Amino acid sequence: MTPIITAYDRSPDGGKGLARDTRVRWALEEVGQEYDVKFVSMAGKTEPDHLRLSPFGRIPVYEDGDLVLFESGAIIHHIAEQHPGTLLPEDPAARARATMWMFAAVNTVEPPIHELGTVQIAEGDRSWATERTPLVHDRIRDVLGQLADTFGDSEWLEDTFTAGDLMMVSVLQRARPAGLLDEFPSLAAYAARAEARPAYERAFATQYAVNAR
Amino acid sequence: MTPIITAYDRSPDGGKGLARDTRVRWALEEVGQEYDVKFVSMAGKTEPDHLRLSPFGRIPVYEDGDLVLFESGAIIHHIAEQHPGTLLPEDPAARARATMWMFAAVNTVEPPIHELGTVQIAEGDRSWATERTPLVHDRIRDVLGQLADTFGDSEWLEDTFTAGDLMMVSVLQRARPAGLLDEFPSLAAYAARAEARPAYERAFATQYAVNAR
Repeated sequence: MTPIITAYDRSPDGGKGLARDTRVRWALEEVGQEYDVKFVSMAGKTEPDHLRLSPFGRIPVYEDGDLVLFESGAIIHHIAEQHPGTLLPEDPAARARATMWMFAAVNTVEPPIHELGTVQIAEGDRSWATERTPLVHDRIRDVLGQLADTFGDSEWLEDTFTAGDLMMVSVLQRARPAGLLDEFPSLAAYAARAEARPAYERAFATQYAVNAR
Repeated sequence: MTPIITAYDRSPDGGKGLARDTRVRWALEEVGQEYDVKFVSMAGKTEPDHLRLSPFGRIPVYEDGDLVLFESGAIIHHIAEQHPGTLLPEDPAARARATMWMFAAVNTVEPPIHELGTVQIAEGDRSWATERTPLVHDRIRDVLGQLADTFGDSEWLEDTFTAGDLMMVSVLQRARPAGLLDEFPSLAAYAARAEARPAYERAFATQYAVNAR
C-alpha cells in the first residue's frame, strides 16, 4: 500500500518549502518510500472532512491503510520506525537521543520561531508589533545560541544524520527569512549541509513544483 | 542501575506540579521504575555543569548510566519504550497514535499555553500586556475547543491510557490557573480522571513534598 500525505494545494510560502509537508516528504525520500499526495486548500483545512483526519486543522496528514496520523513529528517518527536503521539508529540509546532532538526541535526551538508569525502576521496590525519584534528575535537568538554552543563544529547532532537532524533543520529554516539563522554560522552551515542531501533536494523540488508561482 | 532525574530544588510554582519533572516522575510511577533525584536551583540551570547535560538549561534531565536525555517528551518516550505495553501499546499502529498525541501535546497544544507565561511574566510590565492577554486566551481556546471536539466523551485519547494522555494532561494542567481548562468540561474531567491515577498521585505527592512552602 502506498501511503498518502496531505499538503496544501498552494502553500502560503509560495514554494519556499517551509510548510510542514516538506519535512515529511523529506523523510519519505530519505527512506526511499514512494507516496501519493492529496491536496487541501487553506479554506478546506477547517472543513469537516479534513478535521476528521486532522483535528487541529493542519497539514500534513499521513494515511497508510487504516492508520491515520497527524503531527509532522509523529509522522516522521513513524516513517523512521518502519525503516529501522535509516532515520533512527537501531541502538536503543542512540535512537533515544535521535528522538530527543526531534522533541527539542518542536518543543524548545520551534516555539519562539513560531512566535515570529504571531508578531508579524496574526498581530501585525497591533500597536505593539514593532516594539515586540526585537523581543521575539532575542528569544530566538537565545535558543539558537544554546544550540550552537552544544553543536560546536559537529557535522550532525549525533554521530550520523537522523530524524533529529531532519526535524531540527526543518525548524531552523523558519528562522532564516528574518536573518536570524545566518547570525549563527555553524547552524547556517549545518542547515545547508542537510539541504544538500539528495533526499532533501528531491522533496524540495517536488513541493516547489506544486507551490511556486 | 537506578536512573536519576534532575528537578528544581524549589519549583517556581511552589508545588503545583507544573514543572516538567512531575510528568517524568508520573511516567516512572506508571511503569513502576524506581529513580533518584538530583536537585538544581533556578540559578544553577545556566551553569556549565548543568548545560553540559541540558544544553537549553532546562529541567528535567534523565541519566541512566551512559545515557543522558533532556526534553520531557523524549524522556517519557524512552521510559515507555523500556517497558513495552505500559505507556506505549505493543501494536505498531496504536503505538504510532500514542506517540502522535505526545507530539500534538507539546507542538500544538502547549505553545499557546506557554505564551501565557510570556504575556504575563516575561512581558508582564509592557504596555501591551493587558490588551494582549485575551488574544492569547483565545488562541488557547481554539486548540482546546478542537481537542474537545475530537475527544467527545471518550475516557482517553485512544482505547487505553498511554504516554499521549500523560503528556496531554500535563500540558492541559498549565491552562488551569487561567480558568481556561474549566471552560471545557470534558477536558477538565479528562484531566481529573488522569490525576486520580495512583501513579499520578504518587508523583504529585513526591514533588509536593519538595516544593510546597
